[in-house]
Amino acid sequence: MRFTTEQRLDDGLLEREFTLGEIPGILWTPGSASAPVPLILLGHPPLGLRTMYPRLVVWARQSAAEGFAAATIELPGSGDRPRWAAAEQARADLRRVLAAGEPVSDEIIDALVLPLVDRAVPEWQAALDALLSLPEIGGPVGYSGGVISVGIRLAVVEPRIVAAGLFAGSFVPRTMFEEARQVVIPLHVLLQWDDEGNDRQAALDLFDAFGSKEKTLHANMGGHTGVPRFAGEEAAGFFARHLR
Amino acid sequence: MRFTTEQRLDDGLLEREFTLGEIPGILWTPGSASAPVPLILLGHPPLGLRTMYPRLVVWARQSAAEGFAAATIELPGSGDRPRWAAAEQARADLRRVLAAGEPVSDEIIDALVLPLVDRAVPEWQAALDALLSLPEIGGPVGYSGGVISVGIRLAVVEPRIVAAGLFAGSFVPRTMFEEARQVVIPLHVLLQWDDEGNDRQAALDLFDAFGSKEKTLHANMGGHTGVPRFAGEEAAGFFARHLR
Repeated sequence: MRFTTEQRLDDGLLEREFTLGEIPGILWTPGSASAPVPLILLGHPPLGLRTMYPRLVVWARQSAAEGFAAATIELPGSGDRPRWAAAEQARADLRRVLAAGEPVSDEIIDALVLPLVDRAVPEWQAALDALLSLPEIGGPVGYSGGVISVGIRLAVVEPRIVAAGLFAGSFVPRTMFEEARQVVIPLHVLLQWDDEGNDRQAALDLFDAFGSKEKTLHANMGGHTGVPRFAGEEAAGFFARHLR
Repeated sequence: MRFTTEQRLDDGLLEREFTLGEIPGILWTPGSASAPVPLILLGHPPLGLRTMYPRLVVWARQSAAEGFAAATIELPGSGDRPRWAAAEQARADLRRVLAAGEPVSDEIIDALVLPLVDRAVPEWQAALDALLSLPEIGGPVGYSGGVISVGIRLAVVEPRIVAAGLFAGSFVPRTMFEEARQVVIPLHVLLQWDDEGNDRQAALDLFDAFGSKEKTLHANMGGHTGVPRFAGEEAAGFFARHLR
């Protein structure tokens, strides 16, 4: 892990870009921290870190307000990272059926999501190794947002993650329901009730499938990108309860 | 409206019992209020005020912490108020089918809930008239909890109620879904996901039916009576946003 830039944002938050091998990432640490702090891994949709930056920095500030560090890495095939042919094909297939108004088949969802999960999850684990070796990061670790299947797999395979906030707003391969049953950590699940691009019933079924004894579903209006401000504050409250 | 008792609780909360004609009620006002304060009407299940008192006083303290008064009245047919034959018959029918493991029919639900709604709602409106005439109560007014159908009808017919927190944990007559479509005020709906005595799908359908542009569903684990403490705090946050 190599830091490439470092700047203090106006509210004292320290923002450092890094690379982990070929993977770019960003780490934010609270300005005032004296002891090692808990960490929230900030997931995001595969739109590229640069596109996502304005929203990521809002979440990082929210984390810092609770005394937590926040970090994120670029997803495989996003931003400046190399594309791979199968993923490009799956995205093209998705665009085609959406444009034709056809239902999105399980085959397309699997091709779109499963290789991304398989590639991304070990990278987030490697990032966690590197981040937890920094003296300023202590733990515990939470995972928040992004592609929900990445969050599910991480919650199953990564014991250092003790709580996860998930956004039920993207396609979920059928096999992920089986993995969801294996999740036992506390979960805070956001659902945009009137998200036209999302299968509401699948999201409710997924919430039902999670094995966690503590799981909470927060459903709000406002469409896919219209998560209300108070929903973000309630998610921050969830992490405050579990990472402090 | 006639006050019958008055006591200061240890945290300064002023608790006054009152009668409104034949209806007993309780009013809690924050110890420190100088100007007229907003009001939350505390709904409750038809178990009698005396039985519900320990939970009601928790909610009243939560309201006072936000600077709000809280008030409640006895439901018709509960506590020391006279029973009526049709309601007793409906309760007996319900016990019989539940004991026999039979499904609860629409006829039983209608007989159980609709007369209660028809009788209770004008009483809550009369209580609101009396409470808002007190110099220490200003408004705006929220309604919280209790029999969800009472809350739905109140939200439709009572324009002084500007926000409602509802608990989707009791039988809902089919005709109430039509009334739910007419609700337009901000709603905060609690659902216990694993409430075995409650029809989860009906609760989700009801949430979908509400006409409100701002509506939030919070689903948690813990069974009918196991609403987690943080869910109460989030509901308090909802009222703080809408009554301040």
